[in-house]
Amino acid sequence: MSTDPSAGLPTSGSAAPAADVVGAGFDLRHHGDAEVRGADADLTDLAVNVRAGTPPDWLKARIAASLDGLAAYPDGRAAREAVAVRHGLPAGRVLLTAGAAEAFVLLARAIPAQRPVVVHPQFTEPEAALRDAGHTVERVILDERNGFRLAPDAVPEDADLVVIGNPTNPTSVLHPADALAGLARPGRTLVVDEAFMDAVPGERESLADRADVPGLVVLRSLTKTWGLAGLRIGYVLAEPDTVTALERVQPLWPVSSPALTAAEACCAPPALAEAARAADRTAADRAHLADRLAELAEVRVCGPAAGPFLLIQLPGAAAIRTRLRELGFAVRRGDTFPGLGPDWLRIAVRDRATTDRFVIALTKAIAESAA
Amino acid sequence: MSTDPSAGLPTSGSAAPAADVVGAGFDLRHHGDAEVRGADADLTDLAVNVRAGTPPDWLKARIAASLDGLAAYPDGRAAREAVAVRHGLPAGRVLLTAGAAEAFVLLARAIPAQRPVVVHPQFTEPEAALRDAGHTVERVILDERNGFRLAPDAVPEDADLVVIGNPTNPTSVLHPADALAGLARPGRTLVVDEAFMDAVPGERESLADRADVPGLVVLRSLTKTWGLAGLRIGYVLAEPDTVTALERVQPLWPVSSPALTAAEACCAPPALAEAARAADRTAADRAHLADRLAELAEVRVCGPAAGPFLLIQLPGAAAIRTRLRELGFAVRRGDTFPGLGPDWLRIAVRDRATTDRFVIALTKAIAESAA
Repeated sequence: MSTDPSAGLPTSGSAAPAADVVGAGFDLRHHGDAEVRGADADLTDLAVNVRAGTPPDWLKARIAASLDGLAAYPDGRAAREAVAVRHGLPAGRVLLTAGAAEAFVLLARAIPAQRPVVVHPQFTEPEAALRDAGHTVERVILDERNGFRLAPDAVPEDADLVVIGNPTNPTSVLHPADALAGLARPGRTLVVDEAFMDAVPGERESLADRADVPGLVVLRSLTKTWGLAGLRIGYVLAEPDTVTALERVQPLWPVSSPALTAAEACCAPPALAEAARAADRTAADRAHLADRLAELAEVRVCGPAAGPFLLIQLPGAAAIRTRLRELGFAVRRGDTFPGLGPDWLRIAVRDRATTDRFVIALTKAIAESAA
Repeated sequence: MSTDPSAGLPTSGSAAPAADVVGAGFDLRHHGDAEVRGADADLTDLAVNVRAGTPPDWLKARIAASLDGLAAYPDGRAAREAVAVRHGLPAGRVLLTAGAAEAFVLLARAIPAQRPVVVHPQFTEPEAALRDAGHTVERVILDERNGFRLAPDAVPEDADLVVIGNPTNPTSVLHPADALAGLARPGRTLVVDEAFMDAVPGERESLADRADVPGLVVLRSLTKTWGLAGLRIGYVLAEPDTVTALERVQPLWPVSSPALTAAEACCAPPALAEAARAADRTAADRAHLADRLAELAEVRVCGPAAGPFLLIQLPGAAAIRTRLRELGFAVRRGDTFPGLGPDWLRIAVRDRATTDRFVIALTKAIAESAA
């Protein structure tokens, strides 16, 4: 791994469009949704990491029922309590946010870091938010030859804000909880983005309920497992002082009533049981995808994988991705992730039938590109 | 009127709860929803300025239909275009926000003001957001003896950020559009909060479509007329450079898909016609409320009023408000608004029957307090 201080250009105060947040050549504001949007034909979406066939009907019905109360301003107390109970934490350690994206903006504004470090490859929004808030961001790039695993001493000792994903988007690497907890230091805020943790059976390696780790901030999402990307709902678990500091920079009434209803519903025991079953199914479907991809000599699958997506390395991936679109499949480009490049693609885990159709198309695209 | 520089204590970087934002003795974070929330019995709500009986069924149905698409990330382009068309402006002058509350936070962060001035009495959230962002805020307090109207030279010449409401919450004063446009100066950002303008017949005195006024920022809400307080949707109309600067400090995917659906629906011609009819009805209901209150010698109604609420002065209002709660009615206290005091109440306009019931209770409460 290496640190890349050239990424540390603070954003200027001048008015540049948000889409221009480019960190040392990487478009940090490119996300999977852009790969699906505006396509000529209906593409089978393997670019966005939201579970297919969601939200479930029961959840849609719960949200729809909440629309009768829309005239009232949102009251987040019940949802906050539900999240606290779900993780066995006091409500003072919970902050509901309009998706994890808002949480990154709040952290960037509220945490007075001198040396913020983002561990890459990972979701690029934390770095973009930090840069937008005027921070100079340092990158720790995990080594692909080490399977993008966290190496000892990877993070500079005096980093006072560290952001890491677990399981990590886009590498699908699941770091051991103890290794992450070991990153905690006096005076350091340790942000662990667990947006995909509920897709990991048993949520093994989660730090969500670890109130004993000093400076720990865990981000969670309800977007991926429950298909609520359009609703904007997530939450932060942190020390009460940190929660208060984040709340202070949050707009009034930050989370909509339908989103609060969804949060409460998704924390109830039947929902947790459903999420656990979905995680098991995802693990089986991911194994099938990995097996099928292993049949292709040109493809190298990054593993062991734990998220609802696989990262693959494939020479000529950029052209193959374009051909896949023509063949009806959207996959996520890898070249916007610091630490990756044009030969990488991220592929969402889908059901076996979709995977099989996709592998046929991929095989065809690879053959044509070799021709 | 007077300026009140003692209000200009910048907020410290320490972690104080958002609810503690108190500006020179005024609890700027108290809002009408707190007057209704947590009541023992069901109170008739004259505290929150959301139109009763909303959202209408057709709008609820439109929003409910959008829930099928929740798994996709929000795409704000169609709603932005709809807002632009509704105001006859290019889409580059439109920014959708998670309610006006988010817009205040974005403005406080993105506009580099040296001498921000807030014209009071008005909605307190703009000042709270400015203070939270570290600004030193100066207050211009309009004179009640002048009916809280804008006086010439009220605003310091070198104020480079001016925030004013039109029609103003809580005074219900509608400032002439030309008087507001006359506040524009080179180098000044002029923020006109038109959250209640769609409740004014003909939206007379609106500056929404006035792309010719330099530095103008108009804030609009869909919350009050359409009963969408729980959904968090509003928008900013401003010069493209300002829109870009605000967008830059906005989180990714800031507005939920159901809120985008609602924005698009509420900008369509049938919705505008319905809003116009509602504005006419509100004006008639407000006249009835004013007439009934005029029967009470103790009550002085602030007027002429143009919003969906009336501000009244009433000796002993604090105790009377408490008694009104016992009698089943919630009204908005006035003492949290800079420029007002304990003798003021804000009363939402409701249908004639509700108003008549309320005036009976008010008469009783006043008589008891005099006894």
